[in-house]
Amino acid sequence: MEFEGSGIGEECGVFGCVAAGEWPTQLEVAQVLTLGLVALQHRGQESAGIVTSNVGSAPTYAVLKGMGLVSTAFAPEALLKLRHGNLGICHTRYSTTGISELQNCQPFVVDTLHGKIAVAHNGELVNAEALRKRVMRHGVGLSTSSDSELITQLLALTPPMEEQDAPDWVARIKNLMSETPTSYSLLVMFKDVVYAVRDPYGNRPLCIGRVVPVSKLHSSGAGVEDTEGWVVSSESCSFQSIGAKYYREVLPGEIVQISRHGVKSLSVVPRPEGDLPAFCIFEYVYFARPDSIFEGQMVYTVRQRCGRQLAIEAPSDADVVSTVPESATPAALGYAQQFGLPYIEVLCKNRYLGVAKKFGALTDNFAGKRVVLVDDSIVRGNTISPIIKLLKEAGAKEVHIRVASPPIRFPCYMGINIPTKEELIANKPEFQDLAKYIGAASVQYLTVEGLLSAVQDGVASQQQKDQLIGSGNKSSKRVGHCTACLTGKYPVELEW
Amino acid sequence: MEFEGSGIGEECGVFGCVAAGEWPTQLEVAQVLTLGLVALQHRGQESAGIVTSNVGSAPTYAVLKGMGLVSTAFAPEALLKLRHGNLGICHTRYSTTGISELQNCQPFVVDTLHGKIAVAHNGELVNAEALRKRVMRHGVGLSTSSDSELITQLLALTPPMEEQDAPDWVARIKNLMSETPTSYSLLVMFKDVVYAVRDPYGNRPLCIGRVVPVSKLHSSGAGVEDTEGWVVSSESCSFQSIGAKYYREVLPGEIVQISRHGVKSLSVVPRPEGDLPAFCIFEYVYFARPDSIFEGQMVYTVRQRCGRQLAIEAPSDADVVSTVPESATPAALGYAQQFGLPYIEVLCKNRYLGVAKKFGALTDNFAGKRVVLVDDSIVRGNTISPIIKLLKEAGAKEVHIRVASPPIRFPCYMGINIPTKEELIANKPEFQDLAKYIGAASVQYLTVEGLLSAVQDGVASQQQKDQLIGSGNKSSKRVGHCTACLTGKYPVELEW
Amino acid sequence: MEFEGSGIGEECGVFGCVAAGEWPTQLEVAQVLTLGLVALQHRGQESAGIVTSNVGSAPTYAVLKGMGLVSTAFAPEALLKLRHGNLGICHTRYSTTGISELQNCQPFVVDTLHGKIAVAHNGELVNAEALRKRVMRHGVGLSTSSDSELITQLLALTPPMEEQDAPDWVARIKNLMSETPTSYSLLVMFKDVVYAVRDPYGNRPLCIGRVVPVSKLHSSGAGVEDTEGWVVSSESCSFQSIGAKYYREVLPGEIVQISRHGVKSLSVVPRPEGDLPAFCIFEYVYFARPDSIFEGQMVYTVRQRCGRQLAIEAPSDADVVSTVPESATPAALGYAQQFGLPYIEVLCKNRYLGVAKKFGALTDNFAGKRVVLVDDSIVRGNTISPIIKLLKEAGAKEVHIRVASPPIRFPCYMGINIPTKEELIANKPEFQDLAKYIGAASVQYLTVEGLLSAVQDGVASQQQKDQLIGSGNKSSKRVGHCTACLTGKYPVELEW
Amino acid sequence: MEFEGSGIGEECGVFGCVAAGEWPTQLEVAQVLTLGLVALQHRGQESAGIVTSNVGSAPTYAVLKGMGLVSTAFAPEALLKLRHGNLGICHTRYSTTGISELQNCQPFVVDTLHGKIAVAHNGELVNAEALRKRVMRHGVGLSTSSDSELITQLLALTPPMEEQDAPDWVARIKNLMSETPTSYSLLVMFKDVVYAVRDPYGNRPLCIGRVVPVSKLHSSGAGVEDTEGWVVSSESCSFQSIGAKYYREVLPGEIVQISRHGVKSLSVVPRPEGDLPAFCIFEYVYFARPDSIFEGQMVYTVRQRCGRQLAIEAPSDADVVSTVPESATPAALGYAQQFGLPYIEVLCKNRYLGVAKKFGALTDNFAGKRVVLVDDSIVRGNTISPIIKLLKEAGAKEVHIRVASPPIRFPCYMGINIPTKEELIANKPEFQDLAKYIGAASVQYLTVEGLLSAVQDGVASQQQKDQLIGSGNKSSKRVGHCTACLTGKYPVELEW
Repeated sequence: MEFEGSGIGEECGVFGCVAAGEWPTQLEVAQVLTLGLVALQHRGQESAGIVTSNVGSAPTYAVLKGMGLVSTAFAPEALLKLRHGNLGICHTRYSTTGISELQNCQPFVVDTLHGKIAVAHNGELVNAEALRKRVMRHGVGLSTSSDSELITQLLALTPPMEEQDAPDWVARIKNLMSETPTSYSLLVMFKDVVYAVRDPYGNRPLCIGRVVPVSKLHSSGAGVEDTEGWVVSSESCSFQSIGAKYYREVLPGEIVQISRHGVKSLSVVPRPEGDLPAFCIFEYVYFARPDSIFEGQMVYTVRQRCGRQLAIEAPSDADVVSTVPESATPAALGYAQQFGLPYIEVLCKNRYLGVAKKFGALTDNFAGKRVVLVDDSIVRGNTISPIIKLLKEAGAKEVHIRVASPPIRFPCYMGINIPTKEELIANKPEFQDLAKYIGAASVQYLTVEGLLSAVQDGVASQQQKDQLIGSGNKSSKRVGHCTACLTGKYPVELEW
Repeated sequence: MEFEGSGIGEECGVFGCVAAGEWPTQLEVAQVLTLGLVALQHRGQESAGIVTSNVGSAPTYAVLKGMGLVSTAFAPEALLKLRHGNLGICHTRYSTTGISELQNCQPFVVDTLHGKIAVAHNGELVNAEALRKRVMRHGVGLSTSSDSELITQLLALTPPMEEQDAPDWVARIKNLMSETPTSYSLLVMFKDVVYAVRDPYGNRPLCIGRVVPVSKLHSSGAGVEDTEGWVVSSESCSFQSIGAKYYREVLPGEIVQISRHGVKSLSVVPRPEGDLPAFCIFEYVYFARPDSIFEGQMVYTVRQRCGRQLAIEAPSDADVVSTVPESATPAALGYAQQFGLPYIEVLCKNRYLGVAKKFGALTDNFAGKRVVLVDDSIVRGNTISPIIKLLKEAGAKEVHIRVASPPIRFPCYMGINIPTKEELIANKPEFQDLAKYIGAASVQYLTVEGLLSAVQDGVASQQQKDQLIGSGNKSSKRVGHCTACLTGKYPVELEW
Repeated sequence: MEFEGSGIGEECGVFGCVAAGEWPTQLEVAQVLTLGLVALQHRGQESAGIVTSNVGSAPTYAVLKGMGLVSTAFAPEALLKLRHGNLGICHTRYSTTGISELQNCQPFVVDTLHGKIAVAHNGELVNAEALRKRVMRHGVGLSTSSDSELITQLLALTPPMEEQDAPDWVARIKNLMSETPTSYSLLVMFKDVVYAVRDPYGNRPLCIGRVVPVSKLHSSGAGVEDTEGWVVSSESCSFQSIGAKYYREVLPGEIVQISRHGVKSLSVVPRPEGDLPAFCIFEYVYFARPDSIFEGQMVYTVRQRCGRQLAIEAPSDADVVSTVPESATPAALGYAQQFGLPYIEVLCKNRYLGVAKKFGALTDNFAGKRVVLVDDSIVRGNTISPIIKLLKEAGAKEVHIRVASPPIRFPCYMGINIPTKEELIANKPEFQDLAKYIGAASVQYLTVEGLLSAVQDGVASQQQKDQLIGSGNKSSKRVGHCTACLTGKYPVELEW
Repeated sequence: MEFEGSGIGEECGVFGCVAAGEWPTQLEVAQVLTLGLVALQHRGQESAGIVTSNVGSAPTYAVLKGMGLVSTAFAPEALLKLRHGNLGICHTRYSTTGISELQNCQPFVVDTLHGKIAVAHNGELVNAEALRKRVMRHGVGLSTSSDSELITQLLALTPPMEEQDAPDWVARIKNLMSETPTSYSLLVMFKDVVYAVRDPYGNRPLCIGRVVPVSKLHSSGAGVEDTEGWVVSSESCSFQSIGAKYYREVLPGEIVQISRHGVKSLSVVPRPEGDLPAFCIFEYVYFARPDSIFEGQMVYTVRQRCGRQLAIEAPSDADVVSTVPESATPAALGYAQQFGLPYIEVLCKNRYLGVAKKFGALTDNFAGKRVVLVDDSIVRGNTISPIIKLLKEAGAKEVHIRVASPPIRFPCYMGINIPTKEELIANKPEFQDLAKYIGAASVQYLTVEGLLSAVQDGVASQQQKDQLIGSGNKSSKRVGHCTACLTGKYPVELEW
């Protein structure tokens, strides 16, 4: 079922794989893609899609798309059709509205004069509306509201395609990047190559891994070189389950070509003079899996640092430190360590129930005690109240709330679905006396400065240690993060 | 799930409805569309799609598509979203391959500079490959293998769309018709209008009906004018269940505009000098529902005439006449009447079983008798043998086969899915002694001349009686039918 | 989902199969059972169940049950588990209420001291309530409202079961028959034997067939004796699709043992002095498939005789004879033949639509003519009116209704689900002027005497020809039929 | 689909609710039952069943059963049929074999002379085989392999049921208890009463809660007494989500009557002289939810005590303490606290993946460190190896395994599904050098004595504080637990 007018930006995950060496190899590309995508499932649960190509002189694409989780969307018998692929890309999508559209499911595949291209996109084009007009003025009818289709048609459109010459993909991708500044992490598959592209601000993550022969995965006795390959993913957490090693990040503005012959940096498109990189700080705070690595540091460690920083900024007179399971556990442990207080569990999760009634109180652990509850963020402010009430009814003497990120106040136009300004608790009158409103003894947030230092201290120390790959483009190495949802300062003019 | 390379032509059904008078009216357009489409279900069971528009200054389209029968594809709760529509079009598709693709499901809807257009298509463009190249050369990436997307992009492309001017749809449709001669019956919805278009050869059927207030359908006491409207359909059999009356056929080459203000013939694009119309003769023989009306005559009557003609051409020395239920019953009755033989039933159908074992023999009716079994066509020749065997084992003295159409020998490139030339029994060595091969006492077919006279005698007599609507375009009134699958004579050069 | 209090009698179908000779044989018993059951699908569409046994010293039963049609209820992979069976029974059930209960699905299987027994039942015990009390008084809790469970527990109960002796099944079944007079056709499977039982009144049908080697079914080159077997079925129409030949009916009151060694009549329990057999006359009129054989005559032939008799009793001044497709076609043909009027088709069925709107009028066939429409029965009187209206709107000059059975006026307590007395049109005031009420020019029914003579003339002539198997029990051969729903005369006291 | 011979004992959950005061009340019994059952979902995910009664003079039972989780098994529209219930019981079942049988789904409901009874059972009768024979010798056929049916038929059987007298349920339940010693926690619903029964050894848990008016649950302004009621559950964790307060445990051997008038202890059946209670110690170790209360102590606290005891018995020379998420977290925290080592997280869970690949390593947390990994049990020994390997590859210097329970060596015949003796790692040769086999630096288990003291210290201190309800039956208060799976000492002779 599909309807008009959703067009809301979304958080997604992209993943690609190219078998190394002579094709066909023993590397089961479709299986690697599926496992890699499952590891990105937290970035999107609405729909999933996969495209593989078995290349040769007449490359044949096999496409599989479906609603829901990867395990639901990809039926085992359907996956069989993809098994001859030597390379492929896949995508998982976040449900941003009640309306789910199979038609908007990525990767988007179109036929061109030179064959099929497939595109998977994570992000949201800030100037999508203007670009749609430009494409439609050219006489193209757009069949979906997705940025992915728009990107695909833009790639097909400019420069004009000639039957006699192979398309110059670097030129086409550079042209696309000249038409839209952010935000996108893209995978473009054409014949035997996957192009991995990150926008000049590096707003969305993208990194490369190397598949090395692992006996437990491939016990078939295949030669070493036969099971090698390259993968590219929104997050490095997807590497472990497929036996891949972290190789490096795609740099902001970089176009990387991944082929059977290896990984090659084709170009790094610079940002406008003076602009800093703008990697989304909420990937650290909330979205990413804790075992992923961004900018050389593990997300878990950054979250723990946020908890330590929070303990420094907002101490509390309490007996025990705990958290709402599970995403804020590292911050809570950091807070407890910094503060020298015991970390305990206060809530037991029922994974079979919805949010409202899913917690049981572990009464004995905190009855008669003053509890500091560390959370990673408070968005609408309606889930924390019943938890505080539950803890107090179960005997907590006091409940202090500490939030390991600053209040969210502004919308995101770069790929994150955030409630409307009016729905955000930080913009409501109740925020003035939030502790009372949610029934807590006290509430305190991490400052923007505190968050930035918790994030950037690690980057800085990392950069001194590392030999970063890339051109002489100094700007891409300077530190900067997008904090628009906290500060209202967007990395680019929104009417670009 | 989708795969490469199906691209096979198909038989489909299209249906549209526009409420008359001031909008919104009491006419439940979505309900009319659904019922109308169900009545065309015999033309396609693979997938179904429906688009309605509630018009106004910013028309909002609601789209619903699904695999399988209309009743499966359109869940009742999903249909609710379409209930405010004042006009709409829908489509049902025939499964021509094992691979079913939701993506190829029609109507195809795209956004253009001036808003959305929706296209539903029955037929197959003879020059689709060349047209795809032309569109892709323009920089358009094609996301499906369907002719419907191709038609939609062609309509968007030429003449160039200007933001300031409303698009001239007659010009755009005429341009499309100048680029492809056949075969298509099209419905194009744009804002508050449905354009109904038939190719100059009239290869696929399309006719118009008028919805008049019927108390049993609308007992809500709505004013008369509130429940009026216009419908357009592949076959008139869909009119009765929705309380519509047959109005007229869309003529070969005609572009008809259907709006709240009524039906208006905008143009009739002529055929090349000397070319006759080429309405598919197999719509009469097999595809259409017997209560549909083409060229002024009821399909059932034509089939009965085929049976009579067959009795004249191929009499048989037998005791009783019967048929394989149910499509050949009119031909069998015609044969029996012409011949003065009793018509009996010899087979009892089990509607819960597949073809192979679905018949029970009504032994007492024919034991010891010579039976003429009239069938409408023999395609592969593998279903009639077990039936003959069954009848003989159950006591039939002799079984004579009479076929109420000529042997099928050639492929169709205009919308009908026919087995390959090699699979057709008429092209096999066994055809030389077919009676022996299938175990019959004798086999005889209707001649091409006999079929044409059975079909065209009715048209001729009809034309003398009728006041046909249309311009002075004489050629569209002359009689002619496509018999390509029987004779190999295609109405247009295939390399057009 | 299940609920209290449905307990409504139902029409069902039973089928069994035993492979002949040494086990295991090549006969695919599970496949035979499934195909046989599909051929009885018209007797019940709510649920289906199958039990097979692979016998040996420790017989292992495999049971498969499901809601809906046989094809839905028996998934292919689930059927695999039944493939080693050497004998088995199965059952299909009619949906008598909106509430479907998997728990009531037959065959009913219970474990006893001597092993499992399985029971499949067609019919309805007239004294079920009293029997339930008797069983429960013994301390047995009944888990369903189905007669099948009741029968099973009664078989387990009396005489008392002793661990040391094998159960005497003839004694147990005779005891059951002494406790309830009618109606039941039963299949009881225990270890390596299927007992086929018909109540002394023969109210429900049951007949035996013999599977003989058919090359097309078993091309595996198995020896002749390996593919032989016996089948038992509610109707003989199920024999053809499995390659079985009609052998004989189970007689009223007969207990037949079917084993690998063949078919053996164990006993014929007599009716009370003076009682006639009471085979349900509606099996002839409506329920059975036309190619089934009861009492030596084909159902189709009986229906045709009803039509002839109706023509004699209720002629009409008309031009053409037709019918509402499809069940009344033989009666209509009989009427037309007797009367010398042409038989035509007036309605075209859309098999994708519900009753209300499923017919299209074949206008040309009857416009301006007086039509006699022969139907097999009028129950509630609400489906014939719109058809008459449709025909008249399409141009019929007059529509005369002739019904090939008498009016239904009374409930059935013996296995047929009939609307309540109040719902039956024959009990309503409107019946006084039925023609006017339904919009017909005239309405006439077949008389009870006419129906009985149409049915029994064939039985009589058949009995003179046949060598009926059975004991000297003369009463079982005398002619008699249950006409309770027409006359209110039930074959047994209902408070038995 | 069902098959022979599973008959394996299982872990299940039972739950019941009775509205207090005059019926009908505002208490939504069906909703309370559903929520209560969801909170017991961890005790069984194979199937779920619910029975409610709306009582009155002719009580009507509504039954709903289905496969899978409660949310899947109970469709919202189906639940509507249960909404008038004033009392009810429900059950969730654990999948012990690959074969799932809807027929074995509880509660089991049968009709008796005095009306329907419904039974829900958690446990496994040690003498089920002998009892089945006894019931079948009486002439009862058993339709399932479930103990629940057996219990129901035993309750209906003895003493003999008389039509004139209401059944004496205490006598019937006592008779049942005299025939089987353990293990069962039972709910028996008859008309307007639920009987809650626990076997004399108290092997399975059962406790009572009181529903009190909670504004957030019932904002309809109903009177206080209208929303009161009683609940009974396998575990107290189900009380919180339905607004109920813990009231007390059902004692070993106790028969409690729960009606609209309140909770009444009818009898406490004693154990044989000298026998101790035998509550399953694995409910503490693994099965129960950590926020449940048994014998006056919270499960979480007991697990934490196990961790502390383990630290005393099996210290380790390490840097950090961690666990495999999530069930062993309390033991790990207890170990860390006792030992004064920092507790950290080493693994990140991907809840979208199966066991094998579901963990990501939080490298930075433990690289270069010696890790103690506390687990709650090692059953087969095949899941811990890959985790140890993962940690070592990610940089752990040493991995020491500490198990917070003793090795499992013996089968359970009282309701817990345990792998066969041969599959248990503690019975394999590899156990001799387990550390080497699983790749750990060292492995140590908690002793049986240590486990018993961790469990029973709390019970003892609890008993001194509490006023336990019950008769003078001293034995029921003495401390004892079933450790059969660890020691092979079963609480009763198995050939009872």
